[in-house]
Amino acid sequence: MSDLYIGIDLGGTNIKVGCFDDKMNLLKKGSSPTNADMGPEVVVENIGLLTESLFKNWDYSFKNVKAVGIGTPGPVKLREGIVVAAPNLPAFRNTPIRKMVRQRLDKPVVMENDANAACYGEHVIGAGKGVGDMVFLTLGTGIGGGIISNGQIVHGYADDAAELGHAIIYPDGRLCGCGQRGCVEAYASANSTAARAIEAIREGGQTSLSKLLDDTGKITCKQIYNAAADGDELALGITEGTARALGLLCVNILHFSGPRRIVFAGGMIAAGDMLLKRIQYYFDKYIWPMKEESLEICFATLGEDAGIIGNAALACDTLKKGELS
Amino acid sequence: MSDLYIGIDLGGTNIKVGCFDDKMNLLKKGSSPTNADMGPEVVVENIGLLTESLFKNWDYSFKNVKAVGIGTPGPVKLREGIVVAAPNLPAFRNTPIRKMVRQRLDKPVVMENDANAACYGEHVIGAGKGVGDMVFLTLGTGIGGGIISNGQIVHGYADDAAELGHAIIYPDGRLCGCGQRGCVEAYASANSTAARAIEAIREGGQTSLSKLLDDTGKITCKQIYNAAADGDELALGITEGTARALGLLCVNILHFSGPRRIVFAGGMIAAGDMLLKRIQYYFDKYIWPMKEESLEICFATLGEDAGIIGNAALACDTLKKGELS
Repeated sequence: MSDLYIGIDLGGTNIKVGCFDDKMNLLKKGSSPTNADMGPEVVVENIGLLTESLFKNWDYSFKNVKAVGIGTPGPVKLREGIVVAAPNLPAFRNTPIRKMVRQRLDKPVVMENDANAACYGEHVIGAGKGVGDMVFLTLGTGIGGGIISNGQIVHGYADDAAELGHAIIYPDGRLCGCGQRGCVEAYASANSTAARAIEAIREGGQTSLSKLLDDTGKITCKQIYNAAADGDELALGITEGTARALGLLCVNILHFSGPRRIVFAGGMIAAGDMLLKRIQYYFDKYIWPMKEESLEICFATLGEDAGIIGNAALACDTLKKGELS
Repeated sequence: MSDLYIGIDLGGTNIKVGCFDDKMNLLKKGSSPTNADMGPEVVVENIGLLTESLFKNWDYSFKNVKAVGIGTPGPVKLREGIVVAAPNLPAFRNTPIRKMVRQRLDKPVVMENDANAACYGEHVIGAGKGVGDMVFLTLGTGIGGGIISNGQIVHGYADDAAELGHAIIYPDGRLCGCGQRGCVEAYASANSTAARAIEAIREGGQTSLSKLLDDTGKITCKQIYNAAADGDELALGITEGTARALGLLCVNILHFSGPRRIVFAGGMIAAGDMLLKRIQYYFDKYIWPMKEESLEICFATLGEDAGIIGNAALACDTLKKGELS
């Protein structure tokens, strides 16, 4: 019987759990509501029940699970295994999640922040497979990041490296939710893309989206990309602004960690080539002409499973390095 | 007799060589002109003669040298041990410098780019001693950088990581020597600081520096900091622009690799607190208010010896890891 590894993706809304063999083949997965407002003890019990449920009426035994990886929202203290605080897990405050899960499941547990874990998943079997130097960006409500350098996740001194959404690209620009001005997230996240469209309409811009805003009181990033695909000028201007911000970010990423590949993930990549080709356009426009760059900019391939895969892979790799007990 | 390590800093003008024990105590050093225009063979012979000269009439023997580290301008290919090209070494073109030095000295040789080597020197015994996550910036003619993450130099896929001077902070801003617009180097290097002052004078700005420009046809960065120290308004405006650009860079560095410390080096740090305190001011101004940051911004302590120290330390550490032969 093969050794098994469990990957847990702890989100604000749902817990996802996957069981993998040591080649990171997904054998079974499940999910359940987090019920985060009921507090860490209930959440950990839910994790335990969900994990055990995978093994009911199944050929594989929980006894063969060698290690568990859990990814959580941050900020985190990885050495201590603590969730310091997390907007999506309001009842968590200096919560020793690693120890709690270890006690509940009676297995060695490694902990990682959620974006780094998804990055590692793409690195192990996804769009960054075999790429020792890569950067991962999730485009959703906000913009999250992960950096892998020479095969290792870059954590930084305070476990808060790769906050790439908060790189400042336009000093004194738009106010970001983090309190800074001019962050890439303030322009290019799904929420900011929508916010910029609504502002442009309120400033008198003509667009097919106006009626939608009047009727429903909101516009989504998806609707903006759809309108842009239909040739709507205002929507095209907005999506160009998103791509320009991300292209500039890619230039700066290249000059920082020098990756071979930048992998974009998250809901926004459904926009497809309209997004990817324009990011590439602005990267090409802003990068130096000094030399040919080998950087590749592409989309993630694992979708929502990246987290459970990455966490299971970290459990496996950390155990094999002898750094997990 | 202690094991010895040689650090070589190959610059466009001078070659510096130092001999160290395994604690990185500097035992002896020397320098000689590079004579770069005479070609790689002559340069390597100069390196050999300079290194041998250290051991003449000395208690230490060249036989006890265990390994040699050499730092060179880039771009480089470290795995191949090649200087691809270097503006300061015009006769070098795909020059297999590591192999040439190994043959000349008959010792194992490790190669690094010059900024990374100086960064490593500060990491081992300088301003970044004991700091596993640090970033190093040299403020001179240009702006060079080095990143250490978890104790390791970040090289990137193409050995061109940490080109931090070419991070774009003002999109579509000043033209940089690299061909990009808005690089931090286009504002905050010694040359760009001087260039901005000269432009401000030519646009009619009133300053005590005008006469200097009229008399000599140029202004140096040092003269600008001196004038600023004397309260010259135009000079103060220019030095504030330099500090603002570097403060913004520090914010982005924190969000990338999450270092504990950013160490500034190079000729410009002679400006002292006028530079350092204003970089800190702009960092504090632009960083998010979300949480207290533990980042420290400080000056390098090793001066021009950082390169030979870093190269010798890399020789020692690489040999001990069994990665050098």
